[in-house]
Amino acid sequence: MRSLTINSERLRARHDAMAQFGATPRGGVIRPALSEPESQARASLLQWARARNFACGIDPIGNLFVRRNGSEAHLPPVRTGSHLDSQMPGGNFDGVYGVLAGMEVLETLEDHGVETRYPLELVVWNNEEGARFSPVTMGSAVHTGQLALEKALATRDEADISVEAALQASRAELGELAPINLQSPCSAYVEAHIEQGPVLERSGMSIGIVSGIQGIMQFAVTVKGTAAHGGTTPLGLRRDAFLASIQLVEAVRTITRDDDDVTRVTFGRFKVLPGTPNTVPSEVIFTIDLRHPDADHLEKMAQSIHRLGEIDVDGCAVDVNEMLNSAPVNFHPTAMEALLRSAMSHNVETMTLPSGATHDAKHMALVCPTGMLFIPCRDGISHHEDEWADFAAMVAGADVLLGALQLLSQERM
Amino acid sequence: MRSLTINSERLRARHDAMAQFGATPRGGVIRPALSEPESQARASLLQWARARNFACGIDPIGNLFVRRNGSEAHLPPVRTGSHLDSQMPGGNFDGVYGVLAGMEVLETLEDHGVETRYPLELVVWNNEEGARFSPVTMGSAVHTGQLALEKALATRDEADISVEAALQASRAELGELAPINLQSPCSAYVEAHIEQGPVLERSGMSIGIVSGIQGIMQFAVTVKGTAAHGGTTPLGLRRDAFLASIQLVEAVRTITRDDDDVTRVTFGRFKVLPGTPNTVPSEVIFTIDLRHPDADHLEKMAQSIHRLGEIDVDGCAVDVNEMLNSAPVNFHPTAMEALLRSAMSHNVETMTLPSGATHDAKHMALVCPTGMLFIPCRDGISHHEDEWADFAAMVAGADVLLGALQLLSQERM
Repeated sequence: MRSLTINSERLRARHDAMAQFGATPRGGVIRPALSEPESQARASLLQWARARNFACGIDPIGNLFVRRNGSEAHLPPVRTGSHLDSQMPGGNFDGVYGVLAGMEVLETLEDHGVETRYPLELVVWNNEEGARFSPVTMGSAVHTGQLALEKALATRDEADISVEAALQASRAELGELAPINLQSPCSAYVEAHIEQGPVLERSGMSIGIVSGIQGIMQFAVTVKGTAAHGGTTPLGLRRDAFLASIQLVEAVRTITRDDDDVTRVTFGRFKVLPGTPNTVPSEVIFTIDLRHPDADHLEKMAQSIHRLGEIDVDGCAVDVNEMLNSAPVNFHPTAMEALLRSAMSHNVETMTLPSGATHDAKHMALVCPTGMLFIPCRDGISHHEDEWADFAAMVAGADVLLGALQLLSQERM
Repeated sequence: MRSLTINSERLRARHDAMAQFGATPRGGVIRPALSEPESQARASLLQWARARNFACGIDPIGNLFVRRNGSEAHLPPVRTGSHLDSQMPGGNFDGVYGVLAGMEVLETLEDHGVETRYPLELVVWNNEEGARFSPVTMGSAVHTGQLALEKALATRDEADISVEAALQASRAELGELAPINLQSPCSAYVEAHIEQGPVLERSGMSIGIVSGIQGIMQFAVTVKGTAAHGGTTPLGLRRDAFLASIQLVEAVRTITRDDDDVTRVTFGRFKVLPGTPNTVPSEVIFTIDLRHPDADHLEKMAQSIHRLGEIDVDGCAVDVNEMLNSAPVNFHPTAMEALLRSAMSHNVETMTLPSGATHDAKHMALVCPTGMLFIPCRDGISHHEDEWADFAAMVAGADVLLGALQLLSQERM
């Protein structure tokens, strides 16, 4: 196999073009799913695709498919992709990088007249961020049969606009698109993304080969005590929901303690009622976001957390409510090996790491051999206007993606 | 001295009458300072006073004065009093009890034709709760020269109505009132109040003789870390403002630890930003409400708390801002002794305790010999529609107040 490289000038120009859609004064973007700026970004991509005579399609939940045929057109396609929607505000790399890297793969193969056996498709997943419509990764969830189409279409944003209505408005800007069925067969899926964390950057390696997506559990813990006057009530007679809650937090930290620093535990929401300085808190509601790549270990920690709800703490009643339980996903050896072989052929140093964030690849892993590559993300900052990735890393990642997709689309799987 | 007793039937009827003004469906009241319901309550009181030919006056900040003359009319009056405004909502005992007990004292002396040497005055302090206009105990603060009249009159409520405008509207309902000067001389002041805490009820004693009002300090602590993705950022690389804050809370608990359970420390407000489950908190703002009867000990604890702002905690910057510093007040031996002698003459068991909450008596203590008596408050619940005091305790407290005021208004001080 000849080590093709993508056209870095084109990648840079397109990165800059995409950054205009929904640009904020502070250098980020506000580009919610199916908004006017996101529709413009989609239209630009389709324009580039049509200029190369790639077939363009859309499925009922608004995922876009850009297809470069292979020599055996009847084979299920090998896919790559990501998303063009952003947080509000978000940065210029999360999602858009994977779309542009995928587009580079298709165009570079076209530039060099490389014939693949399998068709190659770039997918632009709808509403990955979940910032406008809940849940996150809606497009891939519906496409892979994890979420009912009707339910997703009926979801409304804060302005009471449904996904269905937003989709109709967006489609009007996209021109002719072939209909793609949900749960369309797929031979393999590889997604490129910024890490959105600091691990890869700290390692000094150029590319991360993602081993899987760690499991996520979220809990809402409600602690009920009794409001009392902070000046008149001796500490010994209080049922202080705040002090009980920080005891529970310490208990969760003990349960999740981890010398290898693999477990991720975050107390992101912590609401104290009634919230006046001189009143002993009567109620606290706090969240636990718990992640680990190993399903058994995650489950064991979750059981210990649930047991915290069985006892009173300082006379306060504790309720532990599981809000989310998303099992870990391990990526496929075939996809990981293709990425590794491609990286070696490009002399790119890699490390293997799990993904802390979720991605559309999580759903795709349920239906076909799936993998992901990460490029480093400066200071681990993402979902923020300061989000940044070095251009050299963007090019290296696209080259590795290209090589991996060449391997996957030429070999029978 | 003959042990007079108040007219308990009258006290009960007036308690029930006052409970109608601003009554809530759940058995409390919403009767903010100078509101329509509070003006009606004031008008009722003045009606009862005028029926007994007591002189009625008002000072420039809206405190009402009901006067029963003594044999030496030129002597500065001995005063009692409290307030008719409530929290929103509040209960039927906080403030109103002290006003009605004081009115009982004046009327009982009148009923029995008892002549006192000093004039006796009942004061209805304006805006004690601070629920409508800030600060608390506004009326007594202005009357005693602790707060400038102009500043108080210009204070506005949430509907942008000034104290001055509200006062004008309220006065229209109150009929003819003699003008009383600010900082009018006073010989002694004794206030009856529900404890608003559980100490007295738990002691089993009937009446509390209040030794003083503990000092109050409030701090706002701001802890700044860095927001990060809770799924992708290893714990070792976080600057988690929440975890730093609970370390600071534990440090404050250590600083304020107290085997005798006299120190009151409350973390009533605890705001976590940005407050989403999967984001490592970037900032926490929390309050410390710290109270102790001993000024030196309070100051020593405050210094230790201030020192927490000099160091980084877990890489987070800490700022400690002192919001309130109100020194402890010790009540006057003369007033406390009068209460004790009166209680003994009524065969009422007493305990001595400091007040955890602040009261108008705190300002009066700066200008004349001052004391307070407490009656028990069920479960320590106050500033709440469930606030409750037993009627027998209300009667006992009014009897003790009567005896104490008789003593204070007959002896030269």
